[in-house]
Amino acid sequence: MSDAVTHGGALWVIGLGPGEPHLLTPRAREALDAAERLYGYGPYLNRVVDEHDPRRMASDNREEGARARQALTDAAAGARVAMVSGGDPGVFAMAAAVCEQIERGPVHWRALEVQMIPGISAMFAVAAACGAPLGHDFCAISLSDNLKPWALIERRLQAAAEAGFVMALYNPISASRPWQLGRTFELLRETLTGETVVIFGRAAGRADEHMRITTLAEARAEWADMATLVMIGSEQTRVVERPDQPPLVYSPRFAPGCDPEVSA
Amino acid sequence: MSDAVTHGGALWVIGLGPGEPHLLTPRAREALDAAERLYGYGPYLNRVVDEHDPRRMASDNREEGARARQALTDAAAGARVAMVSGGDPGVFAMAAAVCEQIERGPVHWRALEVQMIPGISAMFAVAAACGAPLGHDFCAISLSDNLKPWALIERRLQAAAEAGFVMALYNPISASRPWQLGRTFELLRETLTGETVVIFGRAAGRADEHMRITTLAEARAEWADMATLVMIGSEQTRVVERPDQPPLVYSPRFAPGCDPEVSA
Repeated sequence: MSDAVTHGGALWVIGLGPGEPHLLTPRAREALDAAERLYGYGPYLNRVVDEHDPRRMASDNREEGARARQALTDAAAGARVAMVSGGDPGVFAMAAAVCEQIERGPVHWRALEVQMIPGISAMFAVAAACGAPLGHDFCAISLSDNLKPWALIERRLQAAAEAGFVMALYNPISASRPWQLGRTFELLRETLTGETVVIFGRAAGRADEHMRITTLAEARAEWADMATLVMIGSEQTRVVERPDQPPLVYSPRFAPGCDPEVSA
Repeated sequence: MSDAVTHGGALWVIGLGPGEPHLLTPRAREALDAAERLYGYGPYLNRVVDEHDPRRMASDNREEGARARQALTDAAAGARVAMVSGGDPGVFAMAAAVCEQIERGPVHWRALEVQMIPGISAMFAVAAACGAPLGHDFCAISLSDNLKPWALIERRLQAAAEAGFVMALYNPISASRPWQLGRTFELLRETLTGETVVIFGRAAGRADEHMRITTLAEARAEWADMATLVMIGSEQTRVVERPDQPPLVYSPRFAPGCDPEVSA
């Protein structure tokens, strides 16, 4: 261990899942309790600690790099530090931001104990709320063109549609990115049929959860907000209507013609 | 509610995560405790209940359809039934099998209460153990050609490689599918450079967890077994070597040229 790192410091990057206690793992809860400082986006911290908790170091949504550096600085000084992420920290979230800063930062940061603690991601919470839309091959794409050129996003959407992946679309819309989701629907309508299942999954796994199940022909960008994950089915994704129960959406495990229980 | 369904029956499809109690959600634990019957693949059931638990209805790995029908029959008769899955039940697992049987089965099964309870999937457990390899756009592909034609799998691997997705490969190898992973590496070497990061993640999140980090040029199919998830990085995925700590593998959140902290 490097001399520059005080013995005992550690950084835990914690996935909170959807935010309700019943979907927070015991491992995550244990790390939150043991931490001497808690970093994260304010609304996520509010899900797990009291607003007046003296350990609380809330920051804005856009400051991931600076937040990671502060947390690493504290950990290198000997503190047990937690960094919280909604969902899973490895999916378009803080785990990559921490790794980036470790690579770029002072060399003694590399001697730190860093642990990523997984959580229930938004895509799996939405899938569970609807049935099993991710039951076959799938992909996850962030629609945020703060992070990459829009042309690259279009190329990936096109490739995923042509190859038959179900798609989970993160960061579908925001005040500063108002047109990207509408453009995504337009683009996908060129490759997929209008009957393709589309899910608008809002606040999945929380008390105010709301799932809207529609088709690509009908889907409208204004049905999404920053708390929404949008899922695009493959041509095989099906909706099972049920009396007195919400519909089930699922993607069969088998490609057409490959299910031994169904004759071709 | 249909007359054919006895009041009170329910089917909970439960994600166990990697299998250790500290990554099992309270919601999953609660459902396991409340269930009157527990269905699932024997080794998965062993992770959460005693071998002599009278509620235990273990079955073989290959019998998903029959297992789902038995569980639905019990639930329709009024029992509170749990079906366990390793990882997340919505990822190449029991949630889709249950939906398939509901669609095909007697119409009164559609009136049943069915809840999917998400879990920590193998891909996120492997990612957490290594750093943040799924920090940018990614996909999940099952290499099992029991479920779909091999040509379709090759098409998806090719599409994912060309479009720059990180890939999580489920079901990489088994006694009855011995050559598919080797062929996958061969195929990907035609599109990706030999330096592309490859992770063999075995038993992630469990006591005997083992991560092997290598390159596409070096990767050998015999390093995987049925407990392994194989991850293929994108051209941007990086390895940060660390003294006295395991290396960190991560995929930057930003595409090349889009990171405001790094001048082009």
